[in-house]
Amino acid sequence: MDAAISQDELQLAARNHGLPLEALRYPITPAGLHYLLIHYDIPDVDADRWALSVDGRVAKPLTLTLADLCNRPSHEVTATMECAGNGRALLAPHVVSQPWLLEAVGNANWTGVSLRLILEEAELLDDAMEVVFTGLDRGFEKGVEQTYQRSLELDVALADDVLLAYEMNGAALLPQHGFPLRLVVPGWYGMTNVKWLAGITVVAEPFRGYQHTAAYRYRDDEEDEGTPVTRMQPRALMVPPGIPDFNTRERTVPPGPCVLEGRAWSGWAPVARVEVSTDGGKTWADGLLEPLDSRWGWRGWRYEWTADDPGEYVLSCRAHDEAGNVQPQEATWNVGGYSNNAPQRVLVTVQEPGYHQGAPE
Amino acid sequence: MDAAISQDELQLAARNHGLPLEALRYPITPAGLHYLLIHYDIPDVDADRWALSVDGRVAKPLTLTLADLCNRPSHEVTATMECAGNGRALLAPHVVSQPWLLEAVGNANWTGVSLRLILEEAELLDDAMEVVFTGLDRGFEKGVEQTYQRSLELDVALADDVLLAYEMNGAALLPQHGFPLRLVVPGWYGMTNVKWLAGITVVAEPFRGYQHTAAYRYRDDEEDEGTPVTRMQPRALMVPPGIPDFNTRERTVPPGPCVLEGRAWSGWAPVARVEVSTDGGKTWADGLLEPLDSRWGWRGWRYEWTADDPGEYVLSCRAHDEAGNVQPQEATWNVGGYSNNAPQRVLVTVQEPGYHQGAPE
Repeated sequence: MDAAISQDELQLAARNHGLPLEALRYPITPAGLHYLLIHYDIPDVDADRWALSVDGRVAKPLTLTLADLCNRPSHEVTATMECAGNGRALLAPHVVSQPWLLEAVGNANWTGVSLRLILEEAELLDDAMEVVFTGLDRGFEKGVEQTYQRSLELDVALADDVLLAYEMNGAALLPQHGFPLRLVVPGWYGMTNVKWLAGITVVAEPFRGYQHTAAYRYRDDEEDEGTPVTRMQPRALMVPPGIPDFNTRERTVPPGPCVLEGRAWSGWAPVARVEVSTDGGKTWADGLLEPLDSRWGWRGWRYEWTADDPGEYVLSCRAHDEAGNVQPQEATWNVGGYSNNAPQRVLVTVQEPGYHQGAPE
Repeated sequence: MDAAISQDELQLAARNHGLPLEALRYPITPAGLHYLLIHYDIPDVDADRWALSVDGRVAKPLTLTLADLCNRPSHEVTATMECAGNGRALLAPHVVSQPWLLEAVGNANWTGVSLRLILEEAELLDDAMEVVFTGLDRGFEKGVEQTYQRSLELDVALADDVLLAYEMNGAALLPQHGFPLRLVVPGWYGMTNVKWLAGITVVAEPFRGYQHTAAYRYRDDEEDEGTPVTRMQPRALMVPPGIPDFNTRERTVPPGPCVLEGRAWSGWAPVARVEVSTDGGKTWADGLLEPLDSRWGWRGWRYEWTADDPGEYVLSCRAHDEAGNVQPQEATWNVGGYSNNAPQRVLVTVQEPGYHQGAPE
């Protein structure tokens, strides 16, 4: 649990921003607090020269400017997005890659054009099998030079709410979120949602790109072919209560009533239940769920804890979804360090009676 | 140079966002890419209930709402802000704190009310010596519970361009940048620019708060009383050229002409010169400076490198200011790990003739 992080990994942590967990309090994540995972560099895109090509196994290839896309009917989706590597730095043995603890998540309103609308306009040929999305970001991974590419099988690509998004929270995409256009596939882990989108190519065979065959697979060991990482596993997170220590982030809580609150999500089905533990996972009690106001956005929850006895506590929470998925007590290790959704652990110290978490002196 | 980072430090790195260095390309840092150093948590501020108090050694104490501040004459300043701990993780021996490499910087347009205007309105008493700024963020550091506070001596507080800022880049402050109000003291390191500002207290003696007496001092060892960290030391940074490797961030550059470009700043005086080295600091050549279009904002520079010979190169840059300050070849270690402005080192491999950094396949 306390493996050392190298300077290479620190470089990644410094570039790829996480959600400070107190920002779980905002129903929609404010600009700059949504997590980011940028494989290479943020590309320098001139929107006036940019266009999206749609080609491959289609009857009518298209070239669409940003204005062309904005002039089509728009569609809006609220969606939680999480990196497939969230929780990686809490795995043992240590997995070297972007060292996420638990903060690789955000919830946003995305506006754009339905991908299905564009594919219908291009007229898929009968042998169309997958849709390949190509970004403008380029780099090396394990010696392989590449432009970032991911594909979707046709049934996923044609599903409701899959967007070619040009706005996030009512404003043009920020450069780091894929300006001028990105794919948004609600319910899927972040790697699916190709940023700086430049090309859509319909293909008649399974796509074998690096990000499908080498990365983003659940593999038990290096020899294992594994299975693809797809939708988000269920997870609940809480706003850490009380106030933190600068260096350790451990929390100090005044004695008495303490409302624990947070968000929960699953890519497989709506969140059905959130449980809370105040004894490090030995016993659990149900939290109160907020109304489900969007299928793909996270669901708020709260739990009224009474912190009567001074001392140290480990607070945890875990989500269940309507498909019966639940967070496991222990992480399942895999080579890439994906989908570690073991419950969050928040170490707090409840102070003695008489302690007040003061207003400024 | 490759000290391991603990999980406590990783928690800080995950919370406190840096500027991805390719974002040096933007003259004004876009929302979400400006560096952040949040000592405790982002406070949850209700702007409708918030007010700024101005009290202490003044004849007319004030209580000002956000509307009161916005109704006063506004003043705009473009300012580069850098964390005093930038470069800390490159120091040896290792210093445990927020582990910045080089990315703790940003450049923004700040809009607000002149601090001098407000202090004049409150009428300073004759014995006024310093001005103490109190935020709403609360936590522990080395066992000391505190609300974040910093002070300014009177001559600094009354200087031109010191702002009570309510806008950043033309929009209300984001929560993480101090909404609804923060102090902006152009030229000073970030810790000076108190966020979530709630109180201004004029005092008749030197302020002895934690962030002045325990933190933010240049100290040779634990026994040394040290000297205060104040203005930003000069620094130049470049946009790393070429394309990166995901894990190591090392760069691959095509052979031939390669424009190196970046930004430089100093809190002491305008940037007068930027030098570039392509041999790891053995020899230096002058870069070309962009016009100086603001006193407190960073200054753009470029250098036309011809990467004719394949192989590995270490690229560096260093800034001089008009006061004669220049970046040192080697860092000066101090207990807090402040102001390590030794030159950036960017490792690049120039490829063989015939290599093209392709468009997407």
